[in-house]
Amino acid sequence: MRSGRRPSIAPIPPGARDLAGEAVRRRRALERRALDQLGAQGYAEIIPPTFEYAEVFTRAGGNDVTDRLLRFFDLDGRLLALRYDFTASVARLAATKLAEAPPPLRLCYSGRVFRQDPARESGRPRETLQVGAELLGVAGVEGDVEAVRLAIALLAEAVGGAREFQINLGHAGALAPAIARLPEDQRALARRLVDRKDAAGLAALSPGILAELPFVIGRKDALDRAAKLLAGSPGTEAVARLGAIDAALNANERPHVVYDFGEVRGLDYYTGIHFEVFVAGAGAAVGAGGRYDDLMARFGRPLPAVGVALDLDAIAEVVP
Amino acid sequence: MRSGRRPSIAPIPPGARDLAGEAVRRRRALERRALDQLGAQGYAEIIPPTFEYAEVFTRAGGNDVTDRLLRFFDLDGRLLALRYDFTASVARLAATKLAEAPPPLRLCYSGRVFRQDPARESGRPRETLQVGAELLGVAGVEGDVEAVRLAIALLAEAVGGAREFQINLGHAGALAPAIARLPEDQRALARRLVDRKDAAGLAALSPGILAELPFVIGRKDALDRAAKLLAGSPGTEAVARLGAIDAALNANERPHVVYDFGEVRGLDYYTGIHFEVFVAGAGAAVGAGGRYDDLMARFGRPLPAVGVALDLDAIAEVVP
Repeated sequence: MRSGRRPSIAPIPPGARDLAGEAVRRRRALERRALDQLGAQGYAEIIPPTFEYAEVFTRAGGNDVTDRLLRFFDLDGRLLALRYDFTASVARLAATKLAEAPPPLRLCYSGRVFRQDPARESGRPRETLQVGAELLGVAGVEGDVEAVRLAIALLAEAVGGAREFQINLGHAGALAPAIARLPEDQRALARRLVDRKDAAGLAALSPGILAELPFVIGRKDALDRAAKLLAGSPGTEAVARLGAIDAALNANERPHVVYDFGEVRGLDYYTGIHFEVFVAGAGAAVGAGGRYDDLMARFGRPLPAVGVALDLDAIAEVVP
Repeated sequence: MRSGRRPSIAPIPPGARDLAGEAVRRRRALERRALDQLGAQGYAEIIPPTFEYAEVFTRAGGNDVTDRLLRFFDLDGRLLALRYDFTASVARLAATKLAEAPPPLRLCYSGRVFRQDPARESGRPRETLQVGAELLGVAGVEGDVEAVRLAIALLAEAVGGAREFQINLGHAGALAPAIARLPEDQRALARRLVDRKDAAGLAALSPGILAELPFVIGRKDALDRAAKLLAGSPGTEAVARLGAIDAALNANERPHVVYDFGEVRGLDYYTGIHFEVFVAGAGAAVGAGGRYDDLMARFGRPLPAVGVALDLDAIAEVVP
C-alpha cells in the first residue's frame, strides 16, 4: 500500500535493471569486442528504432509473441511495441530502407530487446542486451557455416580461454517430417514430449524415429546414428546438411559443436539449421540462431536468411 | 485507410529512425570516444532501465514533462514511461542502488532518451542518442568548472578540428531576481519577452536590469557589463561566479565560452550555472548542462549536482 506521503525513494519496475560499476564495464567491453569482430567479418551495423508498430514483431514471430510484447498506443491510436527482437526489425529494414542494396546483406546490431511473461511469474528481466547478426541472401550450406562460425568466433572472443562454450546444433528438417506424419491433434503433444525428453511417452505415441531421434546427441557419431535412423525418410537431407557443415568447420571450431536432434523450440520459425549457445556456468542458453528462409517474404522481400543472437547480460554474468 | 490485404512493407512510426551505414558508424565512434574520455576523467558509467515509473521523470522535470513522456501501463496497472532523460534516472540510482557510495559521485551514461510533442506538430525524432555526465556532491565553483571543462573536452573530442563549437554560459541567479521582483502575473510574460529578445516589450514592462541584461552576451567584457548593470542588486553573485569560472579556464578552453545572460529556458530547473552547446553547421543546440542543486533532494538524497548532456544524433549530422 502506498501512503499518502510521497515516498522519498522511487523503486524500479519488476524486471528492470539498474546497472553500475563492473556490470557496466563488462557489458561495454563485450559489446565493443562483438561489434568490432562483426565489423571485421563484413557485417554492417544497423540501429532500428526502440519502438515499432507491434505488427512488425508479430509478423515475424507469429501470434505467440503477442502476449510477450511490451505494448502501448501511439498518439494516433496505433499499437506500438518495444523491440521484441532485432530479427524482425532487420527484416523490415532490409525490405524498406535497404531495399536497393543487392544481396547478400550482412547486417549486425547491438541493443536492448524487451519481453515479458504475461503471467508475471518468472521474475525474469524484461530488458536484455543483445548483440547479433543476420546474413540475408545466401541459401546454401555456406550461409549455415558462416552463421555457426560467427557464433563460435563471437563466443571465443567473449569468453574464450576463461569459459568453455558449446553450440548445440540441430536442423528443423530432421524431426519435423516425423511430427508432420502424426494426426494433427497429436503434434503439439509430440513436441511437448520431445521437449520433456519423455521417451516412454514418445514410444507410446509413435515408435521409431519420433521415439529415438530426440535422444541422438553428440559429435560426428551423432550424425551417423541419425543418418542410420532416418535412412530412406525425408529427414536424411537435414542430416546431410549438418554433415556438410561439420566437414566445413576447422579443427579449432569443431570441438565447440554438438549435434542435437532433441531441440523442438522454434520449429515453427526455423526452416533449416537452428542452434543454442551454452557457456559453462550459465544456467540457460546465452544465445541462439538458425535459418528462417520464410521470414523475409513476410516483409515483401523474399530472401533466405540465417542469423545468430547472443544475450550479453547472461554472458556478462559468467565472464571473470 | 488500410486495405483488407496485409501491406507487404511495414513502415516505422512517426519520429522513429532507421539508422544504417555511415549514420551508425558516426554514432558508434562518437559514443566510444565520449565514453572513453568520460572514463579517463573518472566518470563511471551507469545503465538505468529503458523504462521506469513515469513518476521518476515528472519528479525530476516537473509537470511540464508529463505530456512529453511516452507512457504506458504496466501489467499491474502502474504508469511507466520510456526514459525521458538520464538525469532523473541517475538521481534515483544515486539515491538507491548507490546510496552507500560516498560523494562526490561522478557518473556518466550513453543511451536513448524518448520525448514527444503531444500535438505531433514538430515532426521531430522521438528517440535521441544522448551521452552525458553528472557530478554529485560538489557545491563549489570547482564543480561548475569541471562541468564546463567536460563539455569543452567532449566537444573537442567529438568535433574538434573539423567544426567550431561554442558554450553559451549563463547563470540562473543573474536575471531571476529581476523577474521575481515583478508582480506574479507578469513573470511568464517577462520570460517570453526575454526568450523573444523583445527589447521594447521588456522596456515597457520594467526598464533597467530586465530590459538590458538579456542583451548582454560576449566574452569577459560581457561579465564586466553585467556586473556594472547589476551593481548593488542580488544578481551580482551570479556574475562573480561566472567570473571565477572564467578565471579557472585555460587559454585553450576560454575561446569556446561565451557568456550569455539572455537564456531563460530551464530557469525553473537550474539553480546556478546553465549552458547550451552549439556546433557550426547545426541549426540548434547540440547539448546542454548546468547546476540543479534541488534535484537530488526530491529523490531522498540531498546533494548538489551539476551535469552535461550531448545529443549525439545532432552531432553525428554535422561531423564530417
